[in-house]
Amino acid sequence: MNFASDNIVGASAPVLQAIVEANAGAMAAYGNDEISKRVRTRFNEIFEREVSVFFVTTGTAANALALSSAVPPYGLCVCHREAHIIDDECGAPEFFMHGAKLAGLPGVGAKLRAEDVAAYLESLPKAVKQMPPKALSISQVSEGGMVYGLDELSALGGVCREHGLSFHMDGARFANALVSLGCTPAEMTWKQGVDILSFGATKNGGLMAEAIVVFKPELAEALDYRSKRAGQIISKGRLAASQFEGYFADDHWLANARHANRMAALLSAGLLQVPGVRLGWPSQANEVFPIIPKALDRALKAAGILYHGWTELSLPETERVADHEVLIRLVTSWATREEDVRRLLELASSEVGRQAAE
Amino acid sequence: MNFASDNIVGASAPVLQAIVEANAGAMAAYGNDEISKRVRTRFNEIFEREVSVFFVTTGTAANALALSSAVPPYGLCVCHREAHIIDDECGAPEFFMHGAKLAGLPGVGAKLRAEDVAAYLESLPKAVKQMPPKALSISQVSEGGMVYGLDELSALGGVCREHGLSFHMDGARFANALVSLGCTPAEMTWKQGVDILSFGATKNGGLMAEAIVVFKPELAEALDYRSKRAGQIISKGRLAASQFEGYFADDHWLANARHANRMAALLSAGLLQVPGVRLGWPSQANEVFPIIPKALDRALKAAGILYHGWTELSLPETERVADHEVLIRLVTSWATREEDVRRLLELASSEVGRQAAE
Amino acid sequence: MNFASDNIVGASAPVLQAIVEANAGAMAAYGNDEISKRVRTRFNEIFEREVSVFFVTTGTAANALALSSAVPPYGLCVCHREAHIIDDECGAPEFFMHGAKLAGLPGVGAKLRAEDVAAYLESLPKAVKQMPPKALSISQVSEGGMVYGLDELSALGGVCREHGLSFHMDGARFANALVSLGCTPAEMTWKQGVDILSFGATKNGGLMAEAIVVFKPELAEALDYRSKRAGQIISKGRLAASQFEGYFADDHWLANARHANRMAALLSAGLLQVPGVRLGWPSQANEVFPIIPKALDRALKAAGILYHGWTELSLPETERVADHEVLIRLVTSWATREEDVRRLLELASSEVGRQAAE
Amino acid sequence: MNFASDNIVGASAPVLQAIVEANAGAMAAYGNDEISKRVRTRFNEIFEREVSVFFVTTGTAANALALSSAVPPYGLCVCHREAHIIDDECGAPEFFMHGAKLAGLPGVGAKLRAEDVAAYLESLPKAVKQMPPKALSISQVSEGGMVYGLDELSALGGVCREHGLSFHMDGARFANALVSLGCTPAEMTWKQGVDILSFGATKNGGLMAEAIVVFKPELAEALDYRSKRAGQIISKGRLAASQFEGYFADDHWLANARHANRMAALLSAGLLQVPGVRLGWPSQANEVFPIIPKALDRALKAAGILYHGWTELSLPETERVADHEVLIRLVTSWATREEDVRRLLELASSEVGRQAAE
Repeated sequence: MNFASDNIVGASAPVLQAIVEANAGAMAAYGNDEISKRVRTRFNEIFEREVSVFFVTTGTAANALALSSAVPPYGLCVCHREAHIIDDECGAPEFFMHGAKLAGLPGVGAKLRAEDVAAYLESLPKAVKQMPPKALSISQVSEGGMVYGLDELSALGGVCREHGLSFHMDGARFANALVSLGCTPAEMTWKQGVDILSFGATKNGGLMAEAIVVFKPELAEALDYRSKRAGQIISKGRLAASQFEGYFADDHWLANARHANRMAALLSAGLLQVPGVRLGWPSQANEVFPIIPKALDRALKAAGILYHGWTELSLPETERVADHEVLIRLVTSWATREEDVRRLLELASSEVGRQAAE
Repeated sequence: MNFASDNIVGASAPVLQAIVEANAGAMAAYGNDEISKRVRTRFNEIFEREVSVFFVTTGTAANALALSSAVPPYGLCVCHREAHIIDDECGAPEFFMHGAKLAGLPGVGAKLRAEDVAAYLESLPKAVKQMPPKALSISQVSEGGMVYGLDELSALGGVCREHGLSFHMDGARFANALVSLGCTPAEMTWKQGVDILSFGATKNGGLMAEAIVVFKPELAEALDYRSKRAGQIISKGRLAASQFEGYFADDHWLANARHANRMAALLSAGLLQVPGVRLGWPSQANEVFPIIPKALDRALKAAGILYHGWTELSLPETERVADHEVLIRLVTSWATREEDVRRLLELASSEVGRQAAE
Repeated sequence: MNFASDNIVGASAPVLQAIVEANAGAMAAYGNDEISKRVRTRFNEIFEREVSVFFVTTGTAANALALSSAVPPYGLCVCHREAHIIDDECGAPEFFMHGAKLAGLPGVGAKLRAEDVAAYLESLPKAVKQMPPKALSISQVSEGGMVYGLDELSALGGVCREHGLSFHMDGARFANALVSLGCTPAEMTWKQGVDILSFGATKNGGLMAEAIVVFKPELAEALDYRSKRAGQIISKGRLAASQFEGYFADDHWLANARHANRMAALLSAGLLQVPGVRLGWPSQANEVFPIIPKALDRALKAAGILYHGWTELSLPETERVADHEVLIRLVTSWATREEDVRRLLELASSEVGRQAAE
Repeated sequence: MNFASDNIVGASAPVLQAIVEANAGAMAAYGNDEISKRVRTRFNEIFEREVSVFFVTTGTAANALALSSAVPPYGLCVCHREAHIIDDECGAPEFFMHGAKLAGLPGVGAKLRAEDVAAYLESLPKAVKQMPPKALSISQVSEGGMVYGLDELSALGGVCREHGLSFHMDGARFANALVSLGCTPAEMTWKQGVDILSFGATKNGGLMAEAIVVFKPELAEALDYRSKRAGQIISKGRLAASQFEGYFADDHWLANARHANRMAALLSAGLLQVPGVRLGWPSQANEVFPIIPKALDRALKAAGILYHGWTELSLPETERVADHEVLIRLVTSWATREEDVRRLLELASSEVGRQAAE
């Protein structure tokens, strides 16, 4: 039972099959093959408009490259202080942006509020010593498993427009957010002002399938050069493109995300039934962040269940993790089996019961 | 009939099979899986010593990352003036090295001579205005399809030691060089003083299989951080590792390279039989650089044969391409069919005969 | 009456005189002149050991260059969250360090406590996603006008050694700290573990006189190249060197700093006599950070007194600026006239008296 | 007798006087003082239009910063292969441009011909592997002491416009070129299409007086941020500005340059009278590049005359330096004494006569 992350399994069957099928025959290299062309068109359909698509090999590269086209080396990029770009990428954004700075703001569940972003921007001194803000980057799903509503996205988009910032969305779990909101890809992105998107498929059925999708054309202008010089354009482009073809076919991606989210909802609801367990904040996609007794934590680990502890930085001010408790993260995916979820819940219930009886 | 490059086909069957087999089950992410561990051990065996191995997604990334660990931002890296790193990577080395400079020297067939490198190094002013040389990078096979002999490698290694340079080998066609020389991987690398190697497998049967192999331990120290911040550590590391497993099994990689080189030798020998055709320089691996009449060039293209023209920069001084001629490059691979080679040769012969008859 | 900063006046007379005298005659360029050589020797004497000295043109360049020699592009530099390097240099450290990151920690009066630094370092995940910490940078005098005691410096030096960090001191107000502590330059730096120092003289009598002083030899190795490529080596090096010669002669620098500190002490003591005025934290060098009624703030400004408001971030937790108050910064220098200090204090007293009478 | 460079003496008297006068009193820091404002206006007058002016501390910084605003990190900057930016700045342009590349083309006397630049640009592959050309940088006076005529500048400006390049002029010896052509600053720059200029005054009477002058407004947009993060904005801005005030007053700068050029003309004409001496290429400003017998070279050096040898790279193809000869550079300045020039010429004549007699 592995709830450590959504990147611990391989590709889902249709995606793997697409790779195998695409392997045959001679094709133009460096993304000039027919599959890549078909997939680009597919992205246009999915987003209901002309978009520019750049295939990259990791989510880190997607984020860092996207930001490098939006933020000059002397600029500032606003994000949550627990954002993946600030905490988990070993400085990739700073490398690709050539020294531009990430400014991390607080917010419950690793979400930013539009009013906080606006207040921060207005607080910055108007002086040459101050790096000028050039982009806002949010994660949808957030690092805390929460999902921005369309109104929240729209408000953030408005702040960006008002202050002349580009609006970047880290969509490592794009599909999970999408099915959580039940809206269209267009509604969740450019219709709310998103300019550039890291579109992740690896966690939701891909093997290595990441793309940058650009809505604001000037941000796409140099991305091919930037991607090439970052060593991100693989020569046998069919590998990347074929995965997206398998991913999108028959709404496979949405089915995968729905399953993952359903497993998380089951987990979330079940855990709330366990005495002494509560959630740090609501679970809205495929991740659950419960606060559990340390004794339970030990028991779950002893039973071989894999997951990570989590930082308390994004708890609401009113919430506190007591000394006998711990905040953890459980992640579900397209491959999570319902029986594993149920076993985890049963184990938790019986363990807490047992401890109470002692 | 496609002689444009050795990256136009997919993976060879054993490599593809390895990807498919590795897809099943849960595994640790980011290269901490069992397959990656096995492959690292395999590299140690192949190179007959402890080496550090870093999987990356492109040859460009391999080169640029390798150089970034050898050359500080204020340093100089010496290479051939037609090197892939200087001509074909959109400035990736300069990006990863943070502005360090590539100094391109001349040499027949895109090979560097040790005495020329030494003379260049000695000519540099000893002054703070002069970026200090920190690495030598060569391509084995060279961009001109030539192979450095062990004595030549050893001489270059000696120049590096004497001048305090790290010695990098771009092995995008490592296997082709290896079988051309008939030596061991150890003999072609660290035994001649090579410190760090871009080990390419994509062109020789992989789908996306590139690695950096480090012989000088201090060059490996920060490569994991550098790779992470370059967005080069894929989360499902099994994709990369499994390809190498399939590649090395049963000496599959050597068989592939032998086939490719044999096809090039066939091509080379056959072309020399065609009146009016000669070679710009000897063909020593899986590439042939003939000088052919423009009329023949047109005829081959009209027959649908794909290949590229080439720069005359690396011709010997005594050789000149006449106005009615053109220098071209023909590349063979593990997938090149002998019948295609024979058809090309027949076509060339009959065409030249026909033209002579006119 | 200008208390805005200590950089609003020109050079003190001996420094200006030194520039004028050094102007005559032909000299080797780029710092190879005799004056530069003499000054280097003088630095050895002042620090009671062999040091490497690099003249630069701004404090920002001194800090950024010093850090670039201590922190690789993938590394982390710990500092106070209000440090000059993080807030006031438009990203110069990130530029010179090629994207390395500054991690800003809290602390009263913009000072860091050794235990907080140690706790932070120990909290960092041991993972490739985490940029490894490579340097600690403190400001002596701190951005809040406080001075680290020798024991505090020693404790910070110990943390650096234990965690393998280089220890950088931003000494933009080095002399002010020195005379505040009454110790020797050696005691305030390398004897407590400082490895590299930004030695500022511009604020204390220079016109443009900044230097990097290196105690750990390996940090000096490439600084000449780094400085050259940063455009920091002026051709007529006598301009920089002569200022230091004038600065050091007859302990002129110490006299200047003593005067500035005495003016601040006068100001500080006088302000504490004014009802409704208190200090945000103690004044220990040539800056005072009082919390004053807004009405007084308006009156002082109306009287033409120049100074800046200040952020409340570094207040002790027990201290709060009320709605009717404001935190300000008053800076004194070698050129501050005692009569101006007295006039300011009189004005403040009479103004507060007047307001009370209303 | 020192003909090594034009940076070996201090400031000329009016420039030094201006520094001294500007030293008194309190002024706004960081270039917001009144002198800086006056000088900015003066630049507008001199260039007969609104320009943006940024004071920097070295010519290297001026060049590198100017280029960083014209060339993105993935771009190419075309220059002469002996340009100061490519040979003498330890990679500063690459640092400030974040890895963009300099492409060095050949040309007699270190001058570029418009047709060669155009041919080079047209030869570049249209592919993502090729860094796109974004700027042309020339030196006026060239590194070989030659001066581009207005028609040549206009032709280069045309090539830039046609290919979408920004046009940068390194004017380290701007005044020497100006008086050589006898035209106005406007005619030598923006009227021929120059977009951005490194305006050097240090070699012609300044102590440390360099500026970037921008004619194409978008290139000025971020230069204040770029300059700040490069540590190039000195706090006591009066130091830089006052020098320009003294430099421009009463056409002092033009008088200085006329003297230097006249000394070089004297030298050039005199040397041509010496048997066995010829010029590598014509002398057009304040530098002379004679080819002299090695015996004479030894004699001059023995007499204590200081100067540098020079590379033969920019000789015309028809010219060759024989084994018994050497190419040297002699530089004159505003401070060169006519009697020193005459003594050098006499020494050369008598020496050659003496040798012939042997």
